Amino acid sequence: PRLMMASHSTGGRVSCGRDLNCVPEVADTLAAVAKLGFDFLCMPLFHPRFRREFELDPAKVRSGAHTRSDLLLCGRDWNTLVVGKLSPWIETDSEVETERRNSEAALVQELNFSAYLGLPAFMIPLKGPHCANLARVTLCDYNKRICLAIEVGANMPTNAVIDKWLGEPIKAAILPTRIFLTNKKGFPVLSKAHQQIIFRLFKLEAQFIFTGTSRHSEKEFRSYLQYLEYLNQNRPAPNAYELFAKGYEDYLQSPLQPLMDNLESQTYEVFEKDPIKYSQYQQAVYKCLMDRVPEEQKETNTQVLMVLGAGRGPLVNASLRAAKQADRKLRIYAVEKNPNAVVTLENWKFEEWGDQVTVVSCDMREWAAPEKADIIVSELLGSFGDNELSPECLDGAQNFLKDGGVSIPCSYTSFLAPLSSSKLYNEVRGCRERDKDPECHFETPYVVRLHNFHQLAEPKACFTFIHPTTDMNNNRYQCLRFSVGCNTVLHGFAGYFETTLYGDVTLSIKPETHSPGMFSWFPILFPLKQPIPVTKDDDVVVRFWRCNNGKKVWYEWAVTEPSCSAIHNPAGRSYTIGL
Amino acid sequence: PRLMMASHSTGGRVSCGRDLNCVPEVADTLAAVAKLGFDFLCMPLFHPRFRREFELDPAKVRSGAHTRSDLLLCGRDWNTLVVGKLSPWIETDSEVETERRNSEAALVQELNFSAYLGLPAFMIPLKGPHCANLARVTLCDYNKRICLAIEVGANMPTNAVIDKWLGEPIKAAILPTRIFLTNKKGFPVLSKAHQQIIFRLFKLEAQFIFTGTSRHSEKEFRSYLQYLEYLNQNRPAPNAYELFAKGYEDYLQSPLQPLMDNLESQTYEVFEKDPIKYSQYQQAVYKCLMDRVPEEQKETNTQVLMVLGAGRGPLVNASLRAAKQADRKLRIYAVEKNPNAVVTLENWKFEEWGDQVTVVSCDMREWAAPEKADIIVSELLGSFGDNELSPECLDGAQNFLKDGGVSIPCSYTSFLAPLSSSKLYNEVRGCRERDKDPECHFETPYVVRLHNFHQLAEPKACFTFIHPTTDMNNNRYQCLRFSVGCNTVLHGFAGYFETTLYGDVTLSIKPETHSPGMFSWFPILFPLKQPIPVTKDDDVVVRFWRCNNGKKVWYEWAVTEPSCSAIHNPAGRSYTIGL
Repeated sequence: PRLMMASHSTGGRVSCGRDLNCVPEVADTLAAVAKLGFDFLCMPLFHPRFRREFELDPAKVRSGAHTRSDLLLCGRDWNTLVVGKLSPWIETDSEVETERRNSEAALVQELNFSAYLGLPAFMIPLKGPHCANLARVTLCDYNKRICLAIEVGANMPTNAVIDKWLGEPIKAAILPTRIFLTNKKGFPVLSKAHQQIIFRLFKLEAQFIFTGTSRHSEKEFRSYLQYLEYLNQNRPAPNAYELFAKGYEDYLQSPLQPLMDNLESQTYEVFEKDPIKYSQYQQAVYKCLMDRVPEEQKETNTQVLMVLGAGRGPLVNASLRAAKQADRKLRIYAVEKNPNAVVTLENWKFEEWGDQVTVVSCDMREWAAPEKADIIVSELLGSFGDNELSPECLDGAQNFLKDGGVSIPCSYTSFLAPLSSSKLYNEVRGCRERDKDPECHFETPYVVRLHNFHQLAEPKACFTFIHPTTDMNNNRYQCLRFSVGCNTVLHGFAGYFETTLYGDVTLSIKPETHSPGMFSWFPILFPLKQPIPVTKDDDVVVRFWRCNNGKKVWYEWAVTEPSCSAIHNPAGRSYTIGL
Repeated sequence: PRLMMASHSTGGRVSCGRDLNCVPEVADTLAAVAKLGFDFLCMPLFHPRFRREFELDPAKVRSGAHTRSDLLLCGRDWNTLVVGKLSPWIETDSEVETERRNSEAALVQELNFSAYLGLPAFMIPLKGPHCANLARVTLCDYNKRICLAIEVGANMPTNAVIDKWLGEPIKAAILPTRIFLTNKKGFPVLSKAHQQIIFRLFKLEAQFIFTGTSRHSEKEFRSYLQYLEYLNQNRPAPNAYELFAKGYEDYLQSPLQPLMDNLESQTYEVFEKDPIKYSQYQQAVYKCLMDRVPEEQKETNTQVLMVLGAGRGPLVNASLRAAKQADRKLRIYAVEKNPNAVVTLENWKFEEWGDQVTVVSCDMREWAAPEKADIIVSELLGSFGDNELSPECLDGAQNFLKDGGVSIPCSYTSFLAPLSSSKLYNEVRGCRERDKDPECHFETPYVVRLHNFHQLAEPKACFTFIHPTTDMNNNRYQCLRFSVGCNTVLHGFAGYFETTLYGDVTLSIKPETHSPGMFSWFPILFPLKQPIPVTKDDDVVVRFWRCNNGKKVWYEWAVTEPSCSAIHNPAGRSYTIGL
């Protein structure tokens, strides 16, 4: 791998560069490379034989320019088309002091010159595991502008190794010409295993850098490029979920607080488009009606169904469809606290529903219901299951549920998995807010389409809630242990949920059981303030608490193995969910 | 004027909307209006006759929807095509308590519903000077999302009034059909005076809202729109400076610190494109050479010229051209501290200049010059003249200037003018940084293409420096008094400079004397922490200090009339210029 500093993003086409080690005429070479179809050129900034002795006099007073003039290209070309490469003789971690010092000085000079030219990126080779002095000079820590260019070799490593690397912040992949095979027409192609990794690199929007001379000399060099674009055009089609999530990859969002805040029209509109969720609700209500009302009572038994949090009405419509499908009688109360959504419900009632549906403009926790319900239907779940306070809301609603009545959903469970992701860690770091405690943003969960990350173990169940229940205490404490099996760095935990709506009708956003095509929920991310190094024999142990002080609910979390983290969000100081 | 909340920006075409007071069928009306060529529709969100009595029971328990369903349009249409208008019966500042309370409740309901729909803007009429209660409910103070829609009447106010309004954050202009005249072909047109204000509104990228019924009934309504687009296509062509500044309007930049920081290649590239600056320098050097070397000495007298801060060489080239033009002999030293720019200079020398130019890679303040200069040429001026520390640099360079030698420039003067601009005040507010004192960004000057502002008086001279000089004390104190002549709010001061290069050869960025076409400097803005109300009989008195502690230089400033501001940047706590 190489460090690659800074970058620019790309469109639908794959962005490809040509790597050269010797560029005597920069404008001509750039034109030639562009003519072949490349988007950029990787080249050294200084002449490879021009080893400068910074500390010694003969070089210090030597007259003349150290390298070519910036006037050879216009500023825009330097800014967009040229990636600099560090001179290969530079060894910042050499044990020979003179060489180390000269290398440091030359590195700084080349970085400064790269910044002066305004290059989009500058590549620094990582030559081995010992690069502490390089790290000191190049301002490491986590920095969004430091990315990786990984070189793809002829021999593929194991999937575990690939998974791990693809969790790193990859900006580019270097493809040596020697890894290409030759098809029967003489064109360069890649093995199936190589194709698989290229497809995964496409998903990360990596750029590609071709290095080495042509090994298919009877073909033009552009045939390498054309093959990559062919793979791009023929990559596996994204599924419905991937299509929906396009553009949201690794983008952190604060979890909705629909209890405290009123949702907007467009938020409802997006959720209502979910092709799976409402058909599952319809199926759940259908099965419930069939169980509760025997065939012989279908004309006499009118079930009372209350939709708690009716929004703009999709669960009312799903319930009405279920009643029709089951040929059972239903009387519905649509309870909604958002007065703006009530406008929509009232219009539905006027246009379509009529007397079968009573619209109630009220918070379900304050509603004096005129009768008790056979079935209460709600969709109050967040990405972590209970994090939108479904337990507290449904506990309140139990007052107007008949004995033997049914809650849809009847249970839900959250799940957690440890993960490593420099990308996500950096995104969280970027969420720091001016007027808050400087570590507040590390004590807050985020809803996010996890993308450039490495999940370190399978998810495990965290908190479970069932409805109706006799236990009204919704505080929880859970300790989870994960075997990781590789050397890595722990940055946080991915959170998911599964719910049983009724009987065997479920919804899930846990990857292993994800409801196909359902896009209403992205995973949740619980970050850590400090990344924790983990070796392959370590277990990761994390503890999660769900707490409640009567006015709000919050989570606290802490890692206790392989080393202790701080307790995150103690007493809900950084993140709470308002009741 | 009306308050207009939130907004979206536009491209090159003028964005026009249709204002209607009664929209029974929103989708049909929107389609009809779009067909006429309008970009958006302004309409009430609630039925005009639906006056609700919020505090009274009959209305409170009345069933049915309060207004139309959001489902009548898709979310995207609500978000982009519809501007809401407040119900006209609402009087939040009524003296009748019931009416005031009902109005407040209705206003909040309509604002919430507008937010629920995600409308791009919501218009609230300002009916008179008394709107304190409206201001309380609608979260005033300065907020970027509160803009003005001004109505253009049939009778034009004075230019002073127009200037004042165009300094306000105008988002849209309302054009009643009754202000249009009829040309001899029967089409609607505007008077010359109206055209002038439309041209100025174009520069502010205002949107236009057409209100009223057609007064040219034999023509389609679209003829109003077409006339406005005709004016847009035929607006006065921007001058070279306006073209260069496009996109930088009211965009705050930190002043360069070329002494502390090394400039980038592209920064030099932009400045070198200035069509005026270097020809003025050439003219100055030419006149100086003609004055110093009589015709009979032109073969024997070689003038020594030192370019101090040579950058990538434009002043060297200007001097060489001047020598050729004057037919005089010149030996040049090009002194530059930025090692990256020295690469360019060395390449110039190798390719073009030869022995006539000596490249010196050195800070001019540390340089041991091998001989003394006849002429020193420098361009170390910032937008406020001395703010890039030209005085301190040239004082040091005087050591190697011959007695009777010339500095080009030989003098420069800064200027200040008071201004009012909600836009710029908000931009400054947005510059708050996390790790700095919360008012730091108000104690810093900004380089900015002033655009949406009202200059309250002509600029007055502030600090003057001349070179060479015997007075090496570069601290200054100046008190300036301005008559404003209108009721307004003071937000800060615009800064400019004028310089004499040599004899009658000058450069200026003061609007009254601006060098035509020169774009190397935008004005500078000194903000105030707290806007200061000014009445038309008040004078504005401001005091400026230039201070120096041997390591850095800074400005302090304070308003002392009509009321005292804080002293800004005391002891250079928020902004200094490193020596």
